[in-house]
Amino acid sequence: MDWETIFRQISVHTGSKIILFVMDGLGGLPVEGKTELEAAHTPNLDALAAQSVCGLTDPVFMGITPGSGPAHLSLFGYDPTKYILGRGILEALGIGVDVGKNDLVARGNFATLKESLIVDRRAGRIPTSENEKLCQTLNDSLKEVDGTRVSFFPGKEHRFVVKFTGEGLSASLSDADPQKENQPSVPAKALSPEAEKTARVVNNFIDRVTKILKDSPKANTVLLRGFSGCPTLPTMSELYKVNAAAIANYPMYKGLAKLVGMKILDAGSNVSDLFDAAEKHISDHDFFYIHLKKTDSAGEDGNFDAKKKAIEEADGYIPRLFALNPEVLVVTSDHSTPSLLKSHSWHPNPFLLFSNSALPDRVNGFSERECSQGFLGRFQAIYAMPLMLAHAGKLKKFGA
Amino acid sequence: MDWETIFRQISVHTGSKIILFVMDGLGGLPVEGKTELEAAHTPNLDALAAQSVCGLTDPVFMGITPGSGPAHLSLFGYDPTKYILGRGILEALGIGVDVGKNDLVARGNFATLKESLIVDRRAGRIPTSENEKLCQTLNDSLKEVDGTRVSFFPGKEHRFVVKFTGEGLSASLSDADPQKENQPSVPAKALSPEAEKTARVVNNFIDRVTKILKDSPKANTVLLRGFSGCPTLPTMSELYKVNAAAIANYPMYKGLAKLVGMKILDAGSNVSDLFDAAEKHISDHDFFYIHLKKTDSAGEDGNFDAKKKAIEEADGYIPRLFALNPEVLVVTSDHSTPSLLKSHSWHPNPFLLFSNSALPDRVNGFSERECSQGFLGRFQAIYAMPLMLAHAGKLKKFGA
Repeated sequence: MDWETIFRQISVHTGSKIILFVMDGLGGLPVEGKTELEAAHTPNLDALAAQSVCGLTDPVFMGITPGSGPAHLSLFGYDPTKYILGRGILEALGIGVDVGKNDLVARGNFATLKESLIVDRRAGRIPTSENEKLCQTLNDSLKEVDGTRVSFFPGKEHRFVVKFTGEGLSASLSDADPQKENQPSVPAKALSPEAEKTARVVNNFIDRVTKILKDSPKANTVLLRGFSGCPTLPTMSELYKVNAAAIANYPMYKGLAKLVGMKILDAGSNVSDLFDAAEKHISDHDFFYIHLKKTDSAGEDGNFDAKKKAIEEADGYIPRLFALNPEVLVVTSDHSTPSLLKSHSWHPNPFLLFSNSALPDRVNGFSERECSQGFLGRFQAIYAMPLMLAHAGKLKKFGA
Repeated sequence: MDWETIFRQISVHTGSKIILFVMDGLGGLPVEGKTELEAAHTPNLDALAAQSVCGLTDPVFMGITPGSGPAHLSLFGYDPTKYILGRGILEALGIGVDVGKNDLVARGNFATLKESLIVDRRAGRIPTSENEKLCQTLNDSLKEVDGTRVSFFPGKEHRFVVKFTGEGLSASLSDADPQKENQPSVPAKALSPEAEKTARVVNNFIDRVTKILKDSPKANTVLLRGFSGCPTLPTMSELYKVNAAAIANYPMYKGLAKLVGMKILDAGSNVSDLFDAAEKHISDHDFFYIHLKKTDSAGEDGNFDAKKKAIEEADGYIPRLFALNPEVLVVTSDHSTPSLLKSHSWHPNPFLLFSNSALPDRVNGFSERECSQGFLGRFQAIYAMPLMLAHAGKLKKFGA
């Protein structure tokens, strides 16, 4: 019996509440002997850890550095090696593009075409403001290609997302990108027969765009990569019988939550807004995913002190979560982002679970090394969901 | 997406170096309160453990006592339950027989046939010297059977390996061995239609050998078991983009390394030769597997003190490995061989990984019990490869 069959059978709907607080990229590496979390003053997290059961999680498995997609799917209880999210869909979610069943999205670059060669794949990294204007122009002048609706969404610098909307579109396409400079442009090719119509639409689209942009000095064509349809995942409600809500400041995380069927709550743009939203909606749902971005951003910037401060800021909000009195409160990260490495990493995440049915261990503070001594040991993050459900009384016995 | 697909996608070739030092059968059980490793004086391993991240590995999974084949495959990053190495191939590797694509090998016993019954399956355990003479005679007088080349390789006492070389040979054969004494001899049977030709060749071969040996007093026939072709595994270079080399004194380990595409370096026959070879070739490869046999042999002999001494001897060479300045240095065993049990066992292996990107834990010495408190926890040995690659900067992010 596979994972999903098991949970469809044993999960039950109850009124008990689970709060999963994800401090993005929380796990770190020592600088002068201490990790960001060890260096931060976190009286609330430490006190919570002392009353909780702790451990360390690997988002995918040991050694694997996950993107945000697999790292979150795993925490939501979805096998990250089974549900593969394309680059296009992640880029689209990241800038808040709504992707539905009949949509196909791709990452786009504005690029420079000269004498039939792509001489600059990034169009000189045009400013974001110019990108926004170009997308506006294109949205105004090109609404459909061969009966397929098209829309442009500007990203940063030369990057944008294009969305095709129509019946029977297929993502089984090669990139329309020569990958290297001073090469002729490359059409998208159908990688399976059912994608042939889509390939024609995409290539006609590129021709039309190139005609519209012909007088633009740098951004006079586009390259498209990572064609992705809307992934179809069973919802958390189907698998786990929870009525889940997401509270996140950033589009990417709202998008990921939406993919698994969570309701997206209005969570403003500040850290404090996250906790206001949790308080406001606590009665409306039984599973809350709350996402804090700052810890990851600081890690990516290689800013140890900023990451430490972001952790301390979050620590101040822990009593407000605790006061909501959820049956289960989990604090963890989706992946590590050591400021030493300035990037996501494969290091495991500290994990604490507070619940009346948890066996408190000997962990007395919240840190990577403290959690390594916890009762939960080291485990793959996908097991976080069964643990949370179990401690919330949402799982029946498996087998007789 | 399966393991191999993931690593083919995310592994990258870099100049960084990994040294995997395998102390065969290192894990042990206490005698007078201490395991062999705990009793041994190992200042270098202890100091290295204090700077490393530690854990315990299960070669296959908890409770499984592995042979050398699965124990090593796992450490090399190959699923030991997927790639099954036949007895014949292991026996062949163990005595240094080169096995290629068109080869079929089997373990052989010289046996005694009397009045159409196998009366002694081991021909009275004839001395190895007699075995060697018989193999020489057979190699001189029987070079091919039905167009298939045959060669004999003597082992210890009554044991030998036979290699058949030809097109289209199949290993899908039952053993040509009655298993019990005072039974008639048994022909090899084809277990699938494509093995019928091979079965005929093998049975004709046994007849021919029996005729040649007819005047030998004890060893007057042969039994064959464990027919194996050359296993085809993806190479470490294909899967993990490493240019790997093996440094081992014994044929079995060179053979196992060759199966996964490692270059076999000349490593003499003494322990010191291993480290000389590592120093000589450090610039030529980016992954070094170094195999020490003595710890296992002493364990198999039930000789606690000899195992302790072998560990202490190895400890003296650790500074030479460290001085090679690899990005990743791992010291572990392939399986445990407690001298108390005089055999391989299912107990987990102490594991330490030294790297600048490792989070040092609170482990202060190298032993089974110290490692159980390490940050890596207890894990299946197949994850050692992703961990080593990650710490050496040889893995890209998984997913967006």
